[in-house]
Amino acid sequence: MLPKALDYESLNENVKKVQYAVRGELYLRASELQKEGKKIIFTNVGNPHALGQKPLTFPRQVVALCQAPFLLDDPNVGLVFPVDAIARAKHYLSLTSGGLGAYSDSRGLPGVRKEVAEFIERRDGYRSDPELIFLTDGASKGVMQILNTIIRGEQDGVRAMVIINPGNPTGQCLSEANLKEILRFCYQENLVLLGDEVYQQNIYQDERPFISARKVLLDMGPPISKAVQLVSFHTVSKGYWGECGQRGGYFEMTNIPPQTVDEIYKVASISLSPNVPGQIFLGLMVNPPKPGDISYDRFVRESKGILESLRKRARIMTDGFNSCRNVVCNFTEGAMYSFPQIRLPPKAIEAAKKAGKVPDVFYCLKLLEATGISTVPGSGFGQKEGVFHLRTTILPAEEDMPAIMASFKKFNDEFMDQYEDYGGYSRM
Amino acid sequence: MLPKALDYESLNENVKKVQYAVRGELYLRASELQKEGKKIIFTNVGNPHALGQKPLTFPRQVVALCQAPFLLDDPNVGLVFPVDAIARAKHYLSLTSGGLGAYSDSRGLPGVRKEVAEFIERRDGYRSDPELIFLTDGASKGVMQILNTIIRGEQDGVRAMVIINPGNPTGQCLSEANLKEILRFCYQENLVLLGDEVYQQNIYQDERPFISARKVLLDMGPPISKAVQLVSFHTVSKGYWGECGQRGGYFEMTNIPPQTVDEIYKVASISLSPNVPGQIFLGLMVNPPKPGDISYDRFVRESKGILESLRKRARIMTDGFNSCRNVVCNFTEGAMYSFPQIRLPPKAIEAAKKAGKVPDVFYCLKLLEATGISTVPGSGFGQKEGVFHLRTTILPAEEDMPAIMASFKKFNDEFMDQYEDYGGYSRM
Repeated sequence: MLPKALDYESLNENVKKVQYAVRGELYLRASELQKEGKKIIFTNVGNPHALGQKPLTFPRQVVALCQAPFLLDDPNVGLVFPVDAIARAKHYLSLTSGGLGAYSDSRGLPGVRKEVAEFIERRDGYRSDPELIFLTDGASKGVMQILNTIIRGEQDGVRAMVIINPGNPTGQCLSEANLKEILRFCYQENLVLLGDEVYQQNIYQDERPFISARKVLLDMGPPISKAVQLVSFHTVSKGYWGECGQRGGYFEMTNIPPQTVDEIYKVASISLSPNVPGQIFLGLMVNPPKPGDISYDRFVRESKGILESLRKRARIMTDGFNSCRNVVCNFTEGAMYSFPQIRLPPKAIEAAKKAGKVPDVFYCLKLLEATGISTVPGSGFGQKEGVFHLRTTILPAEEDMPAIMASFKKFNDEFMDQYEDYGGYSRM
Repeated sequence: MLPKALDYESLNENVKKVQYAVRGELYLRASELQKEGKKIIFTNVGNPHALGQKPLTFPRQVVALCQAPFLLDDPNVGLVFPVDAIARAKHYLSLTSGGLGAYSDSRGLPGVRKEVAEFIERRDGYRSDPELIFLTDGASKGVMQILNTIIRGEQDGVRAMVIINPGNPTGQCLSEANLKEILRFCYQENLVLLGDEVYQQNIYQDERPFISARKVLLDMGPPISKAVQLVSFHTVSKGYWGECGQRGGYFEMTNIPPQTVDEIYKVASISLSPNVPGQIFLGLMVNPPKPGDISYDRFVRESKGILESLRKRARIMTDGFNSCRNVVCNFTEGAMYSFPQIRLPPKAIEAAKKAGKVPDVFYCLKLLEATGISTVPGSGFGQKEGVFHLRTTILPAEEDMPAIMASFKKFNDEFMDQYEDYGGYSRM
């Protein structure tokens, strides 16, 4: 019998080849174990609310009111919502054409794109044009839109360079000098730069504050500032917001010709519109409460609390890894991840081969079974031949952190005891 | 100088070739006119809230509470929200792993997928498996996911058949006999059937109630019921909900092998998760208030009000078109569209050619400039050679409908006066 269109043998081969480690074998095994009743600590993906981070109150109040506009006329609304949240909800509703239930323009609400442009201007000191800003269902959807436009066919290499700053999976921050070097390279090699800057609020050291690729580019002046094509991405999913489930994001284009912008708009229009509540969250992120607003103090207190705790957790985690046998880990300077290197003994590598597993997958699976800690093997991101890592988020609750690191250490000690002998790698 | 990756000449040729009439030339011109201050009636896209349809109260209350979970502990919450909305919000929050701000599983929340399966079982009388239901950011995202999986490369034809029932753009409903014929054809020709059933609640006649492709397929019995691969789509954007901006939808797979389901899951996981508020709306749509619930009467009153008004508008609109010179229109039996045929006189076709426009685009542009009514030319959907249509939604407010149809009639009369003579098409 002929295979049907949705039989496995008929499927797009590229679909079959796709690997996505963050939700790959480890995640699927973790989900199974969870179903069987095991307690799983999901540190495989940067999903702060799933690990107990509370949402910021003010933006949630505003979006709740936008969802329930009939409350704006309710005489009791002031008993449960502050006046500045009510005013903001009215503001955002006035930017829509029919509330949250109406499709927006496919690039997102013009009024929110204007607020994004103003935010970028304040941040970088250079004018930003709302017409070059597209709102998206989270940053990853924006990246897909751009890649679909760039990549012409199966034979195409990607002509583009991608930076994630602050970095995922390594948690490192780029200096201005790093960024200049990258931009000069893009200029010389005629490459588009895709700047994933979703972690720009997640900085845990003071030596290298966040600086946007766009600011560095424009600071460099002509000819580079007029030549390098740059697309920058941001989201409400990270920072101290962590509103992953709302799917709100944007990208901004620099030095992209108008005809190309039109094509990207056309393709975006087939998806009709990014979700509108996510657009409101984005507006609130780039335009938070100001000093003097009733909700300002609370907003600052909540934001600071989250950032300071993340900073402490980054420290506890990297120190914890560095106290473990055969584990070395750079300090998590920013973003949400630690990326320790695990120096696997030859016997462990052999055992992995026998089990038909990549060595770091083998290690991470054992870690998962023993401790419930769900991580991503470094091989999922690509790493130097013969070197092994894992990626974990720094997101478990601060008070749980010591126990998690102790549990990791115990597992790692036992693992190394089992696979290490005097001929082992780490003793050479 | 070498073109850069995002210069127009470097772009993916398929991107350049894409056409999407619903937000194409007509829509762009309408947006321009709106900016210039002209009043535009956007009937180009099924976007009910943009034309004044009010959201249903109960689902908005529930989602507002899910966005603001701190209200659930507020002693005053009962003053502004009914108890069943509060209970439902708690229910949906219990299905998430961290509220609306946490990514869900890439297939959507398991608890909501279970509610969808129960809805399908009640509707069709056959068991439905939540593992074969994926939640999506609106139905169109689901269609893209499936097409990406089916289509193997540029050389591939689409091996699949698509039905939209009730129909877009024609507003027709398929009978059980029609569906049987289609399914038999798919069986014989080894085609996947993609069943866009997003308008299943939008029925404006009693002769042909909605019947799902899945029910008909399973009713047919083996071998057909076990063989035809079917993917059915649904959404919160249509029906009496019209929650387009929330981007909530699902697809259900029938006779799709598990290995293929795994591949679709893998690809979905790269997009992390559909927006979570949209998933809650979907849960509410398939599991609305029940008799005895405090919010039941209001919910039924609001839903019925919208559907009855749509039914009246379908009648006003098709009768209106049929009263116009050289215009014929089938009754809008379902969905949200009228698709009148415009019998353009030869002189109008000539004038269009001179202006470098497809004839129906020429007509629709003139209509837009004269009346502000923004429609989609039939050529955007494909139509028989030499025959011309336009698509309009039936969504303008009921009280505005007579004036809109009068304005259309006036324009059409003047257009026909200008381009029709005794040698003209309609007098032959």
